[in-house]
Amino acid sequence: MTTVKLIEYEDACKDVREIYDDIRKLRGSDFINNFWKALANDPSQLKQIWTQLKIVMGPGSIDPLTKEMIYIAVSVANSCTYCTHSHTAQARVKGMTDEQHNELIAIIGMAHQTNGLVTSMQVDVDETFLVK
Amino acid sequence: MTTVKLIEYEDACKDVREIYDDIRKLRGSDFINNFWKALANDPSQLKQIWTQLKIVMGPGSIDPLTKEMIYIAVSVANSCTYCTHSHTAQARVKGMTDEQHNELIAIIGMAHQTNGLVTSMQVDVDETFLVK
Amino acid sequence: MTTVKLIEYEDACKDVREIYDDIRKLRGSDFINNFWKALANDPSQLKQIWTQLKIVMGPGSIDPLTKEMIYIAVSVANSCTYCTHSHTAQARVKGMTDEQHNELIAIIGMAHQTNGLVTSMQVDVDETFLVK
Amino acid sequence: MTTVKLIEYEDACKDVREIYDDIRKLRGSDFINNFWKALANDPSQLKQIWTQLKIVMGPGSIDPLTKEMIYIAVSVANSCTYCTHSHTAQARVKGMTDEQHNELIAIIGMAHQTNGLVTSMQVDVDETFLVK
Amino acid sequence: MTTVKLIEYEDACKDVREIYDDIRKLRGSDFINNFWKALANDPSQLKQIWTQLKIVMGPGSIDPLTKEMIYIAVSVANSCTYCTHSHTAQARVKGMTDEQHNELIAIIGMAHQTNGLVTSMQVDVDETFLVK
Amino acid sequence: MTTVKLIEYEDACKDVREIYDDIRKLRGSDFINNFWKALANDPSQLKQIWTQLKIVMGPGSIDPLTKEMIYIAVSVANSCTYCTHSHTAQARVKGMTDEQHNELIAIIGMAHQTNGLVTSMQVDVDETFLVK
Repeated sequence: MTTVKLIEYEDACKDVREIYDDIRKLRGSDFINNFWKALANDPSQLKQIWTQLKIVMGPGSIDPLTKEMIYIAVSVANSCTYCTHSHTAQARVKGMTDEQHNELIAIIGMAHQTNGLVTSMQVDVDETFLVK
Repeated sequence: MTTVKLIEYEDACKDVREIYDDIRKLRGSDFINNFWKALANDPSQLKQIWTQLKIVMGPGSIDPLTKEMIYIAVSVANSCTYCTHSHTAQARVKGMTDEQHNELIAIIGMAHQTNGLVTSMQVDVDETFLVK
Repeated sequence: MTTVKLIEYEDACKDVREIYDDIRKLRGSDFINNFWKALANDPSQLKQIWTQLKIVMGPGSIDPLTKEMIYIAVSVANSCTYCTHSHTAQARVKGMTDEQHNELIAIIGMAHQTNGLVTSMQVDVDETFLVK
Repeated sequence: MTTVKLIEYEDACKDVREIYDDIRKLRGSDFINNFWKALANDPSQLKQIWTQLKIVMGPGSIDPLTKEMIYIAVSVANSCTYCTHSHTAQARVKGMTDEQHNELIAIIGMAHQTNGLVTSMQVDVDETFLVK
Repeated sequence: MTTVKLIEYEDACKDVREIYDDIRKLRGSDFINNFWKALANDPSQLKQIWTQLKIVMGPGSIDPLTKEMIYIAVSVANSCTYCTHSHTAQARVKGMTDEQHNELIAIIGMAHQTNGLVTSMQVDVDETFLVK
Repeated sequence: MTTVKLIEYEDACKDVREIYDDIRKLRGSDFINNFWKALANDPSQLKQIWTQLKIVMGPGSIDPLTKEMIYIAVSVANSCTYCTHSHTAQARVKGMTDEQHNELIAIIGMAHQTNGLVTSMQVDVDETFLVK
């Protein structure tokens, strides 16, 4: 139950339809997920986020599956249910195996634990870790 | 300024020294960072965390550098200054290039942004993302 | 599915009914939302929070709609689904337009992004920002 | 480096001095910590928070030391450095032993870990946990 | 709707069944909650977490009910719905009264508030709070 | 102590200098704050964030000071020290009075409190709050 309406293709303005078409083309599927339908209430924001996401998650020095796993890690730590589900689904599409998923979950759990331990103890950053 | 004392090797009990020795051996360096010195106030906890961390961050289906980048992502989202510094330093040791670091930072920023957008709009999870 | 029971007017003690009456009077509606029904398990806490909220969200140097938008921003960052929905609804009642909602969402998204970037890079506070 | 000025007793108005006097009396010490000096920029807020804190942290069905440990747990999870330090110090004053501190830190770490695991896996609440 | 499958006893491997049996024995009930069924996708992780949890939440210098209340506090601050429900249910089993629950909720609320106030004002840690 | 180097104007490439020049021009000051100097390690990211920030924080249906206050609210909830300082400084430049700052701090504190209360009690969203 979003706090904004979901904009379907049929009800969308020209600018929104162009983005939807681009999403469909890139993904090779007619399916538009709710995030974009919600964001479409603000066509310029829709365009900006989609354009930026294509760059950030696109080809680079970090491989596409790793990028999705990093995205999942942030989404979990920020307690974003939707984002955890959608990026886990996309990681699966990009080839994440059960074994990798298990390891990812274990790393996320462990990182949360040591984050909590460090903050409880207020550990000072070692000099050697600092950028010179 | 930790909320607990830092335990130096000289002042450590036998159980703690064994872990310190193992840390030194594995890393090929005499340096023990503050996290372990703080955790050493509770020798059994020190042993448990170190043992678990070796497993979670050790060889597996996700490569070591990717594991560090995932760790950084969680640490940033949890606002853990120490963890962000220490795992960035370790990612560097494991070969993270400037270009990869830039991409990692961009992904973390973008994930935070879409997490915020999704939560603002309270987007419902699409049926298709759910595990069947 | 709350972790406490919801206290309906009919089942409420005198102290709780007085607060419910005040809520109804101030809002010009018989509707009592779940937050108050849950909080009513602790009548003194109910009274304290309601009294304080009237002061904090009441007339002052920041206008009522801006106050609601600030409340939404905090609630989103804290991943509070209920609070995001209830304060978005209240912001609508206080006149928030679709355009303002879109801008609010964009600011929240952008702030999350730069928060994530800053924490990834552990940027030091510039001297000039500090209060003298 | 606060974003507001710290109000010293000598520079405080009558309302603020009354609260400072009450803090000193209750604690049996002349020391006023920075939180109150910062909050004193808004005398009514200072009074409200101090009054409420005395009630919430005062005698009740949960003992004073347990209350401080709960406060530390929240402060760590919210990454509040000041609050973690100040409530750890107060827990010490209220008798927290090294052993209890170690256990508290371990619980906080473990809770963070399982929170992270649960959110990664998006586990549904079991029917049996719900209040009937 | 988890991002992993839930492993029922009937479909579990021998290692998972052993943990399930141990959970059942310790709790004196056949019921296995979803957290363990989800974690069972990674049998070694299941064993590690269950073993650690028994130690951390077991007998020590902090009583079992206090441990659950600390766990709830962290889970709330981390916005973990499942964990809040499951540990509230367990605190009830361990004897938490309505009055204690009300006080716990009030402390959690108040701690969040002062965390927010402190972070808004960026209050510096008083020298006297630091460990010498 | 950033995890990346700070890029000064003198050491910057042409693309970075153009953004620095634009920041200086828009602000009517030669001062470039550390956030931009850190982001400049990734010139395309620097350009993208600066361009987007100008749009999001620029003229619109929400006034510039309100935008800064919303930004502060998110930054506090995300525990971003740098962002809290920098946006408080910018809110001051845009005319935030002491009284408004006090009210902002009180709203942020109160929102954190009710977020914590709601999450502790796991309050269900009222039907009436949902978008139809």
